Amino acid sequence: MSDRPEPDQAVRDSFARQSFMTTLGAALVEAGAGNVLIAYGRNEAFCQQHGYLHAGVATAIADSACGYAALSMAPPGADVLTIEFKVNFLRPASGERFEARGRVVKPGAQISVCAAEVWETAPRRRLIVTMSATMFIAKGGAETPA
Amino acid sequence: MSDRPEPDQAVRDSFARQSFMTTLGAALVEAGAGNVLIAYGRNEAFCQQHGYLHAGVATAIADSACGYAALSMAPPGADVLTIEFKVNFLRPASGERFEARGRVVKPGAQISVCAAEVWETAPRRRLIVTMSATMFIAKGGAETPA
Amino acid sequence: MSDRPEPDQAVRDSFARQSFMTTLGAALVEAGAGNVLIAYGRNEAFCQQHGYLHAGVATAIADSACGYAALSMAPPGADVLTIEFKVNFLRPASGERFEARGRVVKPGAQISVCAAEVWETAPRRRLIVTMSATMFIAKGGAETPA
Amino acid sequence: MSDRPEPDQAVRDSFARQSFMTTLGAALVEAGAGNVLIAYGRNEAFCQQHGYLHAGVATAIADSACGYAALSMAPPGADVLTIEFKVNFLRPASGERFEARGRVVKPGAQISVCAAEVWETAPRRRLIVTMSATMFIAKGGAETPA
Repeated sequence: MSDRPEPDQAVRDSFARQSFMTTLGAALVEAGAGNVLIAYGRNEAFCQQHGYLHAGVATAIADSACGYAALSMAPPGADVLTIEFKVNFLRPASGERFEARGRVVKPGAQISVCAAEVWETAPRRRLIVTMSATMFIAKGGAETPA
Repeated sequence: MSDRPEPDQAVRDSFARQSFMTTLGAALVEAGAGNVLIAYGRNEAFCQQHGYLHAGVATAIADSACGYAALSMAPPGADVLTIEFKVNFLRPASGERFEARGRVVKPGAQISVCAAEVWETAPRRRLIVTMSATMFIAKGGAETPA
Repeated sequence: MSDRPEPDQAVRDSFARQSFMTTLGAALVEAGAGNVLIAYGRNEAFCQQHGYLHAGVATAIADSACGYAALSMAPPGADVLTIEFKVNFLRPASGERFEARGRVVKPGAQISVCAAEVWETAPRRRLIVTMSATMFIAKGGAETPA
Repeated sequence: MSDRPEPDQAVRDSFARQSFMTTLGAALVEAGAGNVLIAYGRNEAFCQQHGYLHAGVATAIADSACGYAALSMAPPGADVLTIEFKVNFLRPASGERFEARGRVVKPGAQISVCAAEVWETAPRRRLIVTMSATMFIAKGGAETPA
């Protein structure tokens, strides 16, 4: 028994279809009720010029964390599309292990505002990235908020 | 002869050290005088749940385009660090070929403000992503604006 | 005769109802087809600690410029709500006269992405602020994208 | 006696010089150790087209809250300049009383990353705005991060 919620099946299924998450070796650890936790590690194939993970990696994973946080509160059958996000990079991703926590700040029928934090967890725990994101809730499989 | 500028060597060298760009198959097409063009294509390993390129891919490449645009205007030996960026996703990255154009909006000794646009170029040309980014100009190899 | 478009009446009427614009002495110079120009001047009552116009002033006017650019392309009777914006401050607003130009980057039935630039126009012309904004198109007078 | 910290004098002095805060009737309630609270109320002169406070008002006050949070952690004699911020508008500012809480997320010698939340406090308490901001720490009175 655990206080960690079982990931909602729709979230888990969608995450499994994101080939980028698989390629990065990212794991969906928790999902449900507007909260998502994704864990990942350093990978030599995704670095920037100093050998740290590229800013795009933390961003991609934080985006998925926000999107699935929104999806976990959306009606059955809905899809979630990222309208925009802003990311602040507080420290370089120089460590070995990381986790991104996404949460819904304000759910809505059409727009959900989300936030994520990315933490380096090894060799030491420290906050490295913050994201603020806006998600569009699409009913019945629409693929763009146009 | 060509009106395309030869990429500045410091930019080219740094780009070549970004393993994420190599992994994505991204190519530095132009660089110099505050402008950078990076081209890339669809890759099954970097998609989201609908089979389109993940938002993190365009973001990573746009970030590199902005960073190298800033580096192309920085003093010799300087390094460029991303402080923050904001990205709007206008259309899904459903196509086959893409290019990201980064440019310096306002150069500075310590802070450069940059912008990037990502265009789908095949099968049709259309704007899919806009980025606004803030870069820190680090002298002598500093790795964080702390 | 002039190449400046007559402001669309719905935009002009809504602008006139924004008491903040009146209080600031801001004038709607152009509006139509996804483009808006608002002019304003320095006012001692709206400054920050160095005597320059407060960052919130350029932001408010750029927000109105983006919102009315979106409204100028929206269906009759629609209303436009700001979902979010990001602003970069390139230089202090130390001058006397300013103008904000807003435009629609990507119109949509439910979401319009807009951009604005604020220029100091006197004593010299220079770019001081850039904004990227997301607008919600509300039909029939809804007041929130919830 | 109170657990509310006395506002740091440098913060209080600078806030008093911001004529826009005075014009808006905003009050610096708390300041110190990276946290700032500013309270304000509805004012007919600063509204948008529906009679709610203009988005620029909450933005200006949240910006001041972030800036003074950063200043409260900066060295004596330093000044703080806003590089950029992003704001999400969660609900219309339809109420009568508001407060903006700013805090430092990551302090730095040259760059401080801050966040603010704006709450409507009357007639009901609800979150209406979130801000993420980047501040430049200027030593000795510099006025731009150029």
